[in-house]
Amino acid sequence: MEEEQSPRLPATGEPERKHEDAVVDAEDPGSTCNGASSLEQPLLKRSNTLTASHLAMVGAKVSRIESLDYEIIENDLFKHDWRRRSNVEVLQYIFLKWAMAFLVGLLTGVIASLINLAIENISGLKMLHMVNLVRDKRYWAGFLYFSGINLALTFVAAVLCVVFAPTAAGPGIPEIKAYLNGVDTPNMFGAPQLFVKIIGSIGAVSSGLDLGKEGPLVHIGACLANLLSQGGWGKYKLKWRWLRYFNNDRDRRDLITCGASSGVCAAFRAPVGGVLFALEEVATWWRSALLWRTFFSTATVVVVLRGFIEVCRDGRCGMFGEGGLILFDVGDVAVRYHPGDLLPVTIVGVLGGVLGALYNHLLHKVLRVYNLINEKGRLAKLTLALAVCVMTSVMLYVSPFAVPCTPCSPEFGESCPTTGKSGNFKQFNCPGGHYNDLASLLHATNVDATRNIFSTGTAGEFRLDSLLIFFAVYCVLGLFTFGIAVPSGLFLPIILMGSAYGRITALLLSRFARIDHGLYAVLGAAALMSGSMRMTVSLCVIFLELTNNLLLLPITMFVLLIAKTVGDAFNPSIYEIILDLKGLPFLEPKPEPWMKDLTVGELAAAKPRAVTLSVVEKVSTIVDVLRSTRHNGFPVLDRPRPGVSELHGLVLRSHLVAVLRKRWFLGERRRTEEWEARERFTSAELAEKAGDVEEVVGMISLEEMEMYVDLHPFTNTTPYTVVETMSVAKAVVLFRSVALRHMLIMPKFQGPEISPIVGILTRQDLRAHNILDSDY
Amino acid sequence: MEEEQSPRLPATGEPERKHEDAVVDAEDPGSTCNGASSLEQPLLKRSNTLTASHLAMVGAKVSRIESLDYEIIENDLFKHDWRRRSNVEVLQYIFLKWAMAFLVGLLTGVIASLINLAIENISGLKMLHMVNLVRDKRYWAGFLYFSGINLALTFVAAVLCVVFAPTAAGPGIPEIKAYLNGVDTPNMFGAPQLFVKIIGSIGAVSSGLDLGKEGPLVHIGACLANLLSQGGWGKYKLKWRWLRYFNNDRDRRDLITCGASSGVCAAFRAPVGGVLFALEEVATWWRSALLWRTFFSTATVVVVLRGFIEVCRDGRCGMFGEGGLILFDVGDVAVRYHPGDLLPVTIVGVLGGVLGALYNHLLHKVLRVYNLINEKGRLAKLTLALAVCVMTSVMLYVSPFAVPCTPCSPEFGESCPTTGKSGNFKQFNCPGGHYNDLASLLHATNVDATRNIFSTGTAGEFRLDSLLIFFAVYCVLGLFTFGIAVPSGLFLPIILMGSAYGRITALLLSRFARIDHGLYAVLGAAALMSGSMRMTVSLCVIFLELTNNLLLLPITMFVLLIAKTVGDAFNPSIYEIILDLKGLPFLEPKPEPWMKDLTVGELAAAKPRAVTLSVVEKVSTIVDVLRSTRHNGFPVLDRPRPGVSELHGLVLRSHLVAVLRKRWFLGERRRTEEWEARERFTSAELAEKAGDVEEVVGMISLEEMEMYVDLHPFTNTTPYTVVETMSVAKAVVLFRSVALRHMLIMPKFQGPEISPIVGILTRQDLRAHNILDSDY
Repeated sequence: MEEEQSPRLPATGEPERKHEDAVVDAEDPGSTCNGASSLEQPLLKRSNTLTASHLAMVGAKVSRIESLDYEIIENDLFKHDWRRRSNVEVLQYIFLKWAMAFLVGLLTGVIASLINLAIENISGLKMLHMVNLVRDKRYWAGFLYFSGINLALTFVAAVLCVVFAPTAAGPGIPEIKAYLNGVDTPNMFGAPQLFVKIIGSIGAVSSGLDLGKEGPLVHIGACLANLLSQGGWGKYKLKWRWLRYFNNDRDRRDLITCGASSGVCAAFRAPVGGVLFALEEVATWWRSALLWRTFFSTATVVVVLRGFIEVCRDGRCGMFGEGGLILFDVGDVAVRYHPGDLLPVTIVGVLGGVLGALYNHLLHKVLRVYNLINEKGRLAKLTLALAVCVMTSVMLYVSPFAVPCTPCSPEFGESCPTTGKSGNFKQFNCPGGHYNDLASLLHATNVDATRNIFSTGTAGEFRLDSLLIFFAVYCVLGLFTFGIAVPSGLFLPIILMGSAYGRITALLLSRFARIDHGLYAVLGAAALMSGSMRMTVSLCVIFLELTNNLLLLPITMFVLLIAKTVGDAFNPSIYEIILDLKGLPFLEPKPEPWMKDLTVGELAAAKPRAVTLSVVEKVSTIVDVLRSTRHNGFPVLDRPRPGVSELHGLVLRSHLVAVLRKRWFLGERRRTEEWEARERFTSAELAEKAGDVEEVVGMISLEEMEMYVDLHPFTNTTPYTVVETMSVAKAVVLFRSVALRHMLIMPKFQGPEISPIVGILTRQDLRAHNILDSDY
Repeated sequence: MEEEQSPRLPATGEPERKHEDAVVDAEDPGSTCNGASSLEQPLLKRSNTLTASHLAMVGAKVSRIESLDYEIIENDLFKHDWRRRSNVEVLQYIFLKWAMAFLVGLLTGVIASLINLAIENISGLKMLHMVNLVRDKRYWAGFLYFSGINLALTFVAAVLCVVFAPTAAGPGIPEIKAYLNGVDTPNMFGAPQLFVKIIGSIGAVSSGLDLGKEGPLVHIGACLANLLSQGGWGKYKLKWRWLRYFNNDRDRRDLITCGASSGVCAAFRAPVGGVLFALEEVATWWRSALLWRTFFSTATVVVVLRGFIEVCRDGRCGMFGEGGLILFDVGDVAVRYHPGDLLPVTIVGVLGGVLGALYNHLLHKVLRVYNLINEKGRLAKLTLALAVCVMTSVMLYVSPFAVPCTPCSPEFGESCPTTGKSGNFKQFNCPGGHYNDLASLLHATNVDATRNIFSTGTAGEFRLDSLLIFFAVYCVLGLFTFGIAVPSGLFLPIILMGSAYGRITALLLSRFARIDHGLYAVLGAAALMSGSMRMTVSLCVIFLELTNNLLLLPITMFVLLIAKTVGDAFNPSIYEIILDLKGLPFLEPKPEPWMKDLTVGELAAAKPRAVTLSVVEKVSTIVDVLRSTRHNGFPVLDRPRPGVSELHGLVLRSHLVAVLRKRWFLGERRRTEEWEARERFTSAELAEKAGDVEEVVGMISLEEMEMYVDLHPFTNTTPYTVVETMSVAKAVVLFRSVALRHMLIMPKFQGPEISPIVGILTRQDLRAHNILDSDY
């Protein structure tokens, strides 16, 4: 293959001043870089343009998404702002950063505790009354009561979600992941989302649906972080001068990372696991300083949780307060390894990988179908949620009748059978001295069910057929519950499924399994999590902190590694699938191998010509450009003297709109002095998000349209640039490492007739998926 | 302040062809970018050049250091190589990567177990015999025996270290940290270092010196990783085709990360802690895929360790095998928090920060003095090591005589007093039924001492005066032992000091302290570690895995955060101090604030003019350039037609030397075809490190000097470039994020008379320290 280094020049020169014809039709495939066409074997067909979609599914609705500005915009106003910043202001900033991290942790901890309190009490009372009805053999009344309460709770959750905050449905983790990767989804981290997420989560979880509060808690943490950093929501914002330091995407990103890890910590009472989850799964960029701050947040959460547990000890909070700081304590079992354990443990790992991948595959299909239903409108969404709730109620209520009662063994002690509160040996429909093992698992909150199935020293407690029914029920529910319009987490459904198959494996292979059956349930849960979510270190620590058995660690690592390897052989992780399904332009860390064979120049040539501005530009041109394109950054060119051209930098759409809004126009084509712009604009004002052009255009008179704008003070003079011959693989590494929004492509050759810019690439242009779709 | 955007042009044009005068005297401060001098308020004085030192202390000797090439060198040969790479080869590469990670873990685990075995047996036998002599009241004989054996062991360790591998002294962690940051120190990861580190570590630790085997184990892991990836050392290399995939700095970096985390895992039996240590403290760049691979390595280590423990149970390995997988198990203590605990715990944290910072400060001073001694030669080094050994022996042997004997309390059970093997209540010089509490701490291996002081339920065991003496002894030893010429780790000395002051605090504040005194020892150790090393999450997990008490986690986090905050107020972490002391050019993650006020153009102007080459260059010019400079990369310029200039790319010194060595010369100034270079060079050959130019020059005849070299096939055509107006702060972020070695500075303006390159910046030029030193 002929290389592109042969000395060659563009066949046709660039137009002398391309700013005048800045608005280019999107159908025009004319390449800015004619030079690339001299390649003997072009890898790109030039006939089609590289069309990048700016739309994605946000909460079952197609919305316009934007990229975030994580790059430092080095323009005159910004530089002036930090040059003037005093030491006191720097200290204010540092103090506020830590205070925010503390507040995020504190509030997440308090909210999580209150959610827990509500769920345990609501569903505890519900179960208690239902069990009483069943004990009196009033089965139909019990069913109607059970499903009626469930329906009411789901209705509340779903109506809130559908009417007030459609984006609050689901876990929210994929959107947070995308945000931290640089993709802003609208209406994701506001006050309505926070409120709906809290109330909806309480309703959905206590209605017995097969979903967890873990994902929603992560989202709650992120919402809190965002609201705190903005000083409020919408019109109701705190007007505090200190807060202006946080009015940028970089600091918000850090705080949302703190929020996400606080959420995980609050969900699992796992402070280190929370930090690692944020690090391994959610965050794209990471610094040591951030590690420390997230750690501080989760430490705060854990102190709050401990405080609540101390307060609620001795039953002062109703049914809440059991369990202590460790959710599923299996620390009392001594683990001794035996070579014979290798077989069943390996089977658990392999099955975890296979089942996890299968779950991902099936969930993908179900979510596609659900998307079709959800698109039909609010009523369809609501109906779907209620239908799933009815199905859940039926399955949970009826299944225990299908298994026979088990007589209590004396070794279980006095706790068998349990009639009142939550316990391991539910009597349900059985005579005295007997218990219904399936009811112990199904008629409990999801957390209690997990605790029961993880319980150690109870090898004979659960019958194989009960476990099989339990597994089947939760497989069905796990697939069909996730996509409905209520706040829902994925963790607990997967843990429940995994623990069931772990125990089943232990029962089937009981000849080989010398490790406690409860530990097999833990291993199964870990394996399925790893098989579906493909995390390693963070899962390992979360399970360690959940179960408090350090001796289980080596074997957990073993199982996690197997399950992840097996799962990766089939499909990507569940979060990646959801990201893809929603169309969020997530940038993968590793470029595809074929990207090495493609240069950025070729990519740029496949796009419509870049729309550039002159450094002192006519108002009408700016208005035209803003109205006719949806680009967010425009290269600014200058030509200080004949034959010398300059890529002056990049100006953002939001800054142009701000200039038009303030009508900072000049009567003549001249360069302004620095103080002129500073008199009118502050760096904090420019940090605000851009409004719509159309709002602004109406205010500009026809005379003003003929005036000029000096773009010098607003132009980021040092955008990141690469040469057109760079491979896309290398460019993607740069784009992601430095967290870019726009990457400017410079020509290989420099001369009097060559434009200083070849094109401009954004996140969408560099995604493997988009490049492949655009007709190669 | 006037901005630099005003349209301006260089006052003097560049010479038409600057390649002819490529060799520029280092003293010539003439700036390539005259344009920058038009700034009204220059931040740089132009009189002095920015001199970058390429020297650093490597193992007490000043050596030349180099940067590593983590950037993808996109030249013709490399591109051809990966375009031709088949799927089978890709699979080979992936398989080998995992196999290497496995081997690193396996070998580290085995070596760590053998080291443990040796240490426990050697020092166990030594102690046993010494105790017998003391029991017979033969105190002088006991002392001579004790110090004699210690002296012999230290002598072996020090002689090996001084004669064969001076770089094996110390922990090695700072050098690994520098390597992963992109700094190559010579003779650091070879076979002699590995061998000396193993034997020296056994000798040094069993001689009772106040040092640990943790740091050396990390270095051993890194050495193993490096040797495996190279297929051997020096001349004795495995000639396996698959290994060529690993002959690049990027893959080696990943494998060394695996090695480092395996080392920590082997030292503390802490698999997750090992991964996090590598992540938080050692590694500079991190990817999710790497997280997974390191996790795989540490999982392997832990399986090997478990295997050894199983094999050695029942005393089959002499004195080795106690302790199980958890080194210092305090998991049997239930922790209930009380608001009253807040005071003593806060005191432990604050003291940890203060003492840690003080330790860093004093150690810095001691290391400076030691450097002066060590520079005097081998004999001085050896004498210093032996003197410290004698001092240690005296202090350890004599101190226990200073405290009175304590009668055994019946609640201690039958284990008091212990006479034979390691135990908590050493009889030493005491009558029957009594024990010497200080001897229990001092006459044990460091690990056993830690286990004793961490032991729970023993609040009355240690007397305050014993603990004070212990603390004082280990403070003195901890300061004076670290810098001597034996392999030495910092972890254990700090843990010993910290646990002592933790217990002292608990004793002094026993009115307030309701938590077990053993846990105070743990907290003290954690606080001092954090106060000195400034780690958070990784320390937290390491202590969790060391002590197996999850309930201690919230309070450990609290203490760690306090200690780090307090310590950071005084000085940087101990590793940063050592890095600085050695002069290793470590790039900090965060640019200094004042770097925003300085542009890369100004930096480049303060350096000697960049030495450039023409794309087809005379042999004599290349030879001159290589001999007269020590630069490792040269910009390659081209001028395809009059008025059009091109920065063709960057060529590495090693590639130029390779061309000279093969004498691939052309009779005329022409561009070669691609196959011509491919016939003579392979990508694998070019990956070898450059030899010295002087070796090669002798082979070139005078006629050949007049011939030409075509640099097209060797030039990286897409080096990362930035515009001269970019602030140094922004450039540093790019440099570190993308792991660069050379950063090319492009001019702001492009025109016929302007050179396409302004200068070239390297790691040394971007370090805050160097910029500040160079006379601003």
